[in-house]
Amino acid sequence: MIDRLMRKIDLCKNPTVVGLDPTYDIIPETIRKKMTEKYGKTSKAVRKMIVGFNKQIIDETYDLIPAVKIQIAMYEKYGTEGIRAYLETILYAQKKGLFVIGDIKRGDIASTAEAYASHLGGVDIEDTHFDLWNEDAVTLNPYMGFDGIEPFIDPCNKYDKGLFILVKTSNPSGGEIQDLIADGRPVYEHVSDLVSRWGRLSMGSDGYSRIGAVVGATYKKQGEKLRKNMPHTFFLVPGYGAQGATGADLKGYFDKDGRGCIVNSSRGIIAAYRKNERYGDHNFAEAAREAVIKMKYDLGRSYV
Amino acid sequence: MIDRLMRKIDLCKNPTVVGLDPTYDIIPETIRKKMTEKYGKTSKAVRKMIVGFNKQIIDETYDLIPAVKIQIAMYEKYGTEGIRAYLETILYAQKKGLFVIGDIKRGDIASTAEAYASHLGGVDIEDTHFDLWNEDAVTLNPYMGFDGIEPFIDPCNKYDKGLFILVKTSNPSGGEIQDLIADGRPVYEHVSDLVSRWGRLSMGSDGYSRIGAVVGATYKKQGEKLRKNMPHTFFLVPGYGAQGATGADLKGYFDKDGRGCIVNSSRGIIAAYRKNERYGDHNFAEAAREAVIKMKYDLGRSYV
Repeated sequence: MIDRLMRKIDLCKNPTVVGLDPTYDIIPETIRKKMTEKYGKTSKAVRKMIVGFNKQIIDETYDLIPAVKIQIAMYEKYGTEGIRAYLETILYAQKKGLFVIGDIKRGDIASTAEAYASHLGGVDIEDTHFDLWNEDAVTLNPYMGFDGIEPFIDPCNKYDKGLFILVKTSNPSGGEIQDLIADGRPVYEHVSDLVSRWGRLSMGSDGYSRIGAVVGATYKKQGEKLRKNMPHTFFLVPGYGAQGATGADLKGYFDKDGRGCIVNSSRGIIAAYRKNERYGDHNFAEAAREAVIKMKYDLGRSYV
Repeated sequence: MIDRLMRKIDLCKNPTVVGLDPTYDIIPETIRKKMTEKYGKTSKAVRKMIVGFNKQIIDETYDLIPAVKIQIAMYEKYGTEGIRAYLETILYAQKKGLFVIGDIKRGDIASTAEAYASHLGGVDIEDTHFDLWNEDAVTLNPYMGFDGIEPFIDPCNKYDKGLFILVKTSNPSGGEIQDLIADGRPVYEHVSDLVSRWGRLSMGSDGYSRIGAVVGATYKKQGEKLRKNMPHTFFLVPGYGAQGATGADLKGYFDKDGRGCIVNSSRGIIAAYRKNERYGDHNFAEAAREAVIKMKYDLGRSYV
């Protein structure tokens, strides 16, 4: 997976990941109206809205980007219809050749983590195998330690899938636990040691592991230091754009060859039509394309 | 919610929570066979198996217990049909008067946590409100700090719901991060400070907060200390039985009045029929009832 992802980044010359995290408000009113007229004020209508919206975003951007990140919370919010929207979005993105990261941030004890690992490894019902989720990679939470990670490593190796484990998050209160100082170093650095060590259990062929890290864009110096501490760990970087960071902040997140990092933007891309007068409800996907191109060049300056 | 839960515990004289976490292997072969014959080797068949199994467990135990805990991973594993099984189980347990804890362990940045908070607060589609999940309480992961918790507090207050936030978990590798020493105290104690402080934002009327803590049963002394550090925080205690702890280990988890704590057992109850020759496939629910009664008396010794 990590080799595939790196090849796709090279082909696009772009480490931009589009975050398909549509809140109800982000979906243009014309789409909302059309679907509630057709399906009523129901979760089914919301599924149709979200999938329709996502497909148009994908159609306008898939040739420019290596991957999409899908935040499952925005789908889970709408119950089983929401989950169907998540699954339909995965399938459509993969059909367009995109690498799909399921932003699920699960984390639990071993027997439970084994159940969650079906996101990557599928499930057997008697002698029949099903891939009911089938993300290419998922995000995980490390608070419970290796027990909660280990069951995912087998599917990573067996099906060439990947993980991105939370190390340093981009949100304002992320430091409450992550920045506590233990033995002279913040907790997130200890977590980076663990993730780096776990990474050796599933190495790709080109210097990076299938087990990556989530490192927020909003803490420039910490990102640079983590890059040095975790030389074979690929970074998924949230917090670009709407959360405040720019390409200039991210130079140190890439390795000396400009590799080792993908950068996500969600609202900054999918809600771009709201911030640009030239675009209206009907051109939301074109606005997203323009935002991706801008981001590509902004990021390009940080590693070329 | 916390007042309701405490009243129910008093009525049952039992702080036992049954964990409805059926793996495929735990479901008796007779049920598996019947459902695959009827619905094929499909996720729909698994939904029917799980819900049928859970209903029988609930029917045999609901008069003895205050609450069930449903581990969503075991359901999520089976995609949308699995999620339907989770939702059907919630509804059935609530119809029988049980308090339902959704063991979802979500945790994310504010905008995402707001979406996950629909588990407790429901969702608005235009001017219509839906409770698509409707657990009475959910478990959360604190690694991202208060941002990821705050959106749940409003539904706790508005709809009288509850939270149990991971503090010290019962799994072997839980200490890798949680036991790091910062300022002379383990990380999980710092987390207990945070959870205790957050708890003041949603107090019940009887001394305990709607914002509780998950404290594993497998670390007796730490549990006792946390009880003292978090006097108004209710504990959800996993790790009893199959994970090794007994009632004697848990005395210090209760307050001086024998309150402040519920104890979960999953496999120890729902798979009890496997460990007792008197019971076979057909009597799995009776075996679960006997296991609940044993656990009630074992726990009773620890706080009466």
